[in-house]
Amino acid sequence: MNVIKGGVTAPEGFFATGVACGLKKDGKKDLAIVCSEDSAAIAGVFTTNKVKGHSLQLTMEHMKTGYANAIVINSGNANACVGDRGYGDALKIATVTSELLDCRPQDILVASTGVIGVPLNMDAIIPALEELVSNMDPDGGHDAAEAIMTTDTITKEVAIELELQDTRVVIGGMAKGSGMIHPNMATMIGVITTDANISRKLLDKALRTVVKSSFNRVTVDGDTSVCDMVVIFANGMAENPSIINEGEDYEKFVSGLEYVCTYLAKLIARDGEGATKLVEVAVEGAENPDDAYRAACAVAKSPLVKTMMFGNDVNWGRIITAVGYSGAEFDPAYIDIYIGDMPMCKAGCAVDFDEAEARRLLEQDEVRVLIRLNKGVYSDRVWTCDLSYDYVKINASYRT
Amino acid sequence: MNVIKGGVTAPEGFFATGVACGLKKDGKKDLAIVCSEDSAAIAGVFTTNKVKGHSLQLTMEHMKTGYANAIVINSGNANACVGDRGYGDALKIATVTSELLDCRPQDILVASTGVIGVPLNMDAIIPALEELVSNMDPDGGHDAAEAIMTTDTITKEVAIELELQDTRVVIGGMAKGSGMIHPNMATMIGVITTDANISRKLLDKALRTVVKSSFNRVTVDGDTSVCDMVVIFANGMAENPSIINEGEDYEKFVSGLEYVCTYLAKLIARDGEGATKLVEVAVEGAENPDDAYRAACAVAKSPLVKTMMFGNDVNWGRIITAVGYSGAEFDPAYIDIYIGDMPMCKAGCAVDFDEAEARRLLEQDEVRVLIRLNKGVYSDRVWTCDLSYDYVKINASYRT
Repeated sequence: MNVIKGGVTAPEGFFATGVACGLKKDGKKDLAIVCSEDSAAIAGVFTTNKVKGHSLQLTMEHMKTGYANAIVINSGNANACVGDRGYGDALKIATVTSELLDCRPQDILVASTGVIGVPLNMDAIIPALEELVSNMDPDGGHDAAEAIMTTDTITKEVAIELELQDTRVVIGGMAKGSGMIHPNMATMIGVITTDANISRKLLDKALRTVVKSSFNRVTVDGDTSVCDMVVIFANGMAENPSIINEGEDYEKFVSGLEYVCTYLAKLIARDGEGATKLVEVAVEGAENPDDAYRAACAVAKSPLVKTMMFGNDVNWGRIITAVGYSGAEFDPAYIDIYIGDMPMCKAGCAVDFDEAEARRLLEQDEVRVLIRLNKGVYSDRVWTCDLSYDYVKINASYRT
Repeated sequence: MNVIKGGVTAPEGFFATGVACGLKKDGKKDLAIVCSEDSAAIAGVFTTNKVKGHSLQLTMEHMKTGYANAIVINSGNANACVGDRGYGDALKIATVTSELLDCRPQDILVASTGVIGVPLNMDAIIPALEELVSNMDPDGGHDAAEAIMTTDTITKEVAIELELQDTRVVIGGMAKGSGMIHPNMATMIGVITTDANISRKLLDKALRTVVKSSFNRVTVDGDTSVCDMVVIFANGMAENPSIINEGEDYEKFVSGLEYVCTYLAKLIARDGEGATKLVEVAVEGAENPDDAYRAACAVAKSPLVKTMMFGNDVNWGRIITAVGYSGAEFDPAYIDIYIGDMPMCKAGCAVDFDEAEARRLLEQDEVRVLIRLNKGVYSDRVWTCDLSYDYVKINASYRT
């Protein structure tokens, strides 16, 4: 497997672009399309929030056929909680796009991200769809990645190539999301493309497996949004022998997909609103997988841990506190806590450590916290970021 | 029932004081005592964190007799996660204090709040205990309330009087805690005193009932700490006919206690680290009590809701989002959301509202969010505060 240049248009037969249609007040790109030359097998994972955006509802409906041609994504407006017109607006976007692409409306997926409760400005979007489709380009992945950004400060895209039985297969991806990110999809949109030839059933299985350990292991502020999804398009144009069972090819494909999704997920954490660093919270020795996840997640979500990371203040008491209320089973008399390789706490008891050296570890771009529960054999890890002044600044006046 | 001046020393037969023994670097008071003239019936509610501070462990042990004379509280150090010496240090404090007060060590409760993982400076505390005991004063409640503060910006105390069968009974209280506050005790210490004559069993029941709807309905940052407790001392010196069953006197006593605990709990939320306002999140129409609590709590904990409150940005989409991931059962098509009396969302759909007027509502000292799930008859409410730059500032360098 090699990392290559590009994002969603790196695989064969994908076109994309992004344009500014006027949803964002600052005139930046706010409408994106990713399109496969041929109908592609698709799979998706969607928010678990009980409230679901109207575009997302349409996409869940359209996914039922198992195949699609393109996805249209707008930023600047979530198309959520606006009543019946919301679904109608999403359908209109799909219908107009399908006419331009000469396919059926149900072959078009729609995603929206931004403010809730404000109707989509259809007068801006509909006329822009023609420009969007005519601008589509086999090198347009980066423009699409730009157009889906909200409070993101960097575009998030990646591509890899791998060999499946002497055939080159490429997987590309882009994502957005920096605030409101939390396991179970959050305000995050991920679009993955691949030219792999793979059955729809295995594509679905691969995506579900991989999302669990990548996108669902990122938390910025613990909030999960109403609009968010990861979808994958597989158009088969690499012409590898079709992956129809869980053999070696499938495993290789999953590894590649895992790389792409993990890369994007970590980028989301690192680019969390106001973040100055990426924090990995690893838990080992849990009695069961749920406990490993619970403990890692509680530490990663704790505002006190996150502000301590921002301030480079080696206050590991906040880490043990979060593990303590996480709901994970453990005996406080056996827990070990490390920052990087440096032990802070062994068998539940403070150990002497070099304060300056520990502070230096916290000052890095990437900080790793390791918690050993010493109770069982299960482990997990969650990525998050620090909580800074800028997080408050960005979120105190998002709409205005 | 009347609110009267004072705090823990307002009831008959209570003495208190606070001194500076050197645990706080800035020379402020950091050691407090609250003492009853006679042995008092006691009850307590403790942190649910699996990790428990050593002083708290000692107090849980000493509470088993059902009676105590005094509580000694230090701020500036949590006495947690320091190994076997932690329990020994707490016992030493209890033993020395009991000698000075001429009672048994188990008649002394100990509480500690502050940094985790650093041994108590016993050379500072032990010599100060004599001064502490000799300074005790029937008007010393305020000094004690000062000495238990950590990042608190105001002392928190209150007292009320009520009539039980023509006898005047007084309940007083003090509390500390501004960060790390969350349902189930958090870094919060509350000491309630009363001269009521009440059975230990009913005292315990009254405290548990009241804590549930007061201290356990406050969240500042969702973190629950390892050291926190609410204890009540009832010394019977009002000489009211003993409350031994759940009749009218008991109900009156519970109402009075509820007033005291709710007053202190709301003060904790209002004084949350960096807070500029008190936010009440009320949920009505839930299918069951747990759902009402879950929904209120998710909204009150959401960093996105809390930063929006700080910025006076009427972004109610964040409220419906939090309800959506709370786990509460509801149909998004029936939910109503209000800020103050102003509807933002009816039947799951945005309604037009006067933006300037809504902003004015958010700019108040107290903001009320009301969520109607329209699914059942249960309600709940949680108090929180906004999330400001100062929260980050305070917590980015707590130790240093």
